[in-house]
Amino acid sequence: RRMPADPAAFVQQGKKIVAIGRNYAEHIKELSNDAPKEPMFFLKPTTSYLPAGGNVEIPRGVNTHYEVELGLVIGKTGRDIPQADADSHIAGYALAVDMTARNMQEVVKKKGHPWSAAKGFDTFTPISAYIPKSAVSDPNSLQLTLKVNGVTKQDGNTDQMIFKIPRMIEHISSIMTLEAGDLVLTGTPSGVGPVVPGDHVTCTLTDSTGKQLAALEFRAVQREGGYSFQP
Amino acid sequence: RRMPADPAAFVQQGKKIVAIGRNYAEHIKELSNDAPKEPMFFLKPTTSYLPAGGNVEIPRGVNTHYEVELGLVIGKTGRDIPQADADSHIAGYALAVDMTARNMQEVVKKKGHPWSAAKGFDTFTPISAYIPKSAVSDPNSLQLTLKVNGVTKQDGNTDQMIFKIPRMIEHISSIMTLEAGDLVLTGTPSGVGPVVPGDHVTCTLTDSTGKQLAALEFRAVQREGGYSFQP
Ligand SMILES: [Mg+2]
Ligand SMILES: [Mg+2]
Ligand SMILES: [Mg+2]
Repeated sequence: RRMPADPAAFVQQGKKIVAIGRNYAEHIKELSNDAPKEPMFFLKPTTSYLPAGGNVEIPRGVNTHYEVELGLVIGKTGRDIPQADADSHIAGYALAVDMTARNMQEVVKKKGHPWSAAKGFDTFTPISAYIPKSAVSDPNSLQLTLKVNGVTKQDGNTDQMIFKIPRMIEHISSIMTLEAGDLVLTGTPSGVGPVVPGDHVTCTLTDSTGKQLAALEFRAVQREGGYSFQP
Repeated sequence: RRMPADPAAFVQQGKKIVAIGRNYAEHIKELSNDAPKEPMFFLKPTTSYLPAGGNVEIPRGVNTHYEVELGLVIGKTGRDIPQADADSHIAGYALAVDMTARNMQEVVKKKGHPWSAAKGFDTFTPISAYIPKSAVSDPNSLQLTLKVNGVTKQDGNTDQMIFKIPRMIEHISSIMTLEAGDLVLTGTPSGVGPVVPGDHVTCTLTDSTGKQLAALEFRAVQREGGYSFQP
């Protein structure tokens, strides 16, 4: 049996990405969705990680959207984690983008099919360097920004999250054990939209004092070969 | 960076479970679903593995169904794997049960929500010992059986699969890289149904000569604490 994953090496060693959907009211409105009564989540494969500076590959026929999000890196394995203990299971943070095949997602939503393909393409989770917890005084007041070709598209604050971090950890771990090295994506603020080949995307995570905790950039390129979406 | 996972230790070391849905015509009919035009898949977390002989925990309020399936254990990492090369990426097999929170799944299908929670509870993937490829002469003519309390409920053959193994590997790997240690579940034949606390479930995998390749058993118990489904 292997040792538990090292949280600082979560991109290489972690086993799952659990992503919360619909956690900012303005983003729910922009996609005409209903607000969930409990946190809603889906899985992304760790094969979707893209380290900062890489290329997001846009699959053929796919309208690919960015969603900038705060990531929680799990440091201690747990099940049925009470909200009061949630913080002790978090080792650190990361800045991430939950890339989404929006036109595929719209089709599977209508059909009642799984989201896994629409969320799970290779390169669909651009990810920053690991941010140790000691660098973050309050994860509930962090500013997330995303620019496409220098134009600000998303500019939200984690204080707008509907379900707070302890409630997310409690909910997910009441269904599936969270393991050291897992990443929890906490949802995106409003302003999501498409990226097309050639676009340059830059993101920042800043605390309430203005200190930058992470930056992340990538370029979008056309994926050669692979899956082609034909609606 | 860690070494690639050892396929024989896929339960401990593997990172993802990719499960094909609706791959047997009789099962599609029994759930009144439409047949997909291309393989349909979803992700299960590896925290759902339950080694043979353990207890499947039925969450409160959840109608939990069994689905017996052939599992493919990936031995060599690959992306955009052509059908002709698919076999070289398979290291071995396993007998698995894709436990499903059916009443939760029906609700999320109607709402267009993700399947991840309904498929991803801890203990929801009972799994046999690893079967090395050398023990299996033809994966396309294996008999899968599942009994509840000694009564046969599922009795199907992999020769009834709509999408064959090379097509599944090609499709999944055109979207997400398949890594050594990943498991692909290939869909379930007809006969799915509920298990309730106290039930004893036994499954077998047999080849066309009658040789038993794997057996798997578990008991169902009521899950204490954790998530409670309230539709
Ligand atoms: Mg998202
Ligand atoms: Mg996984
Ligand atoms: Mg299944």
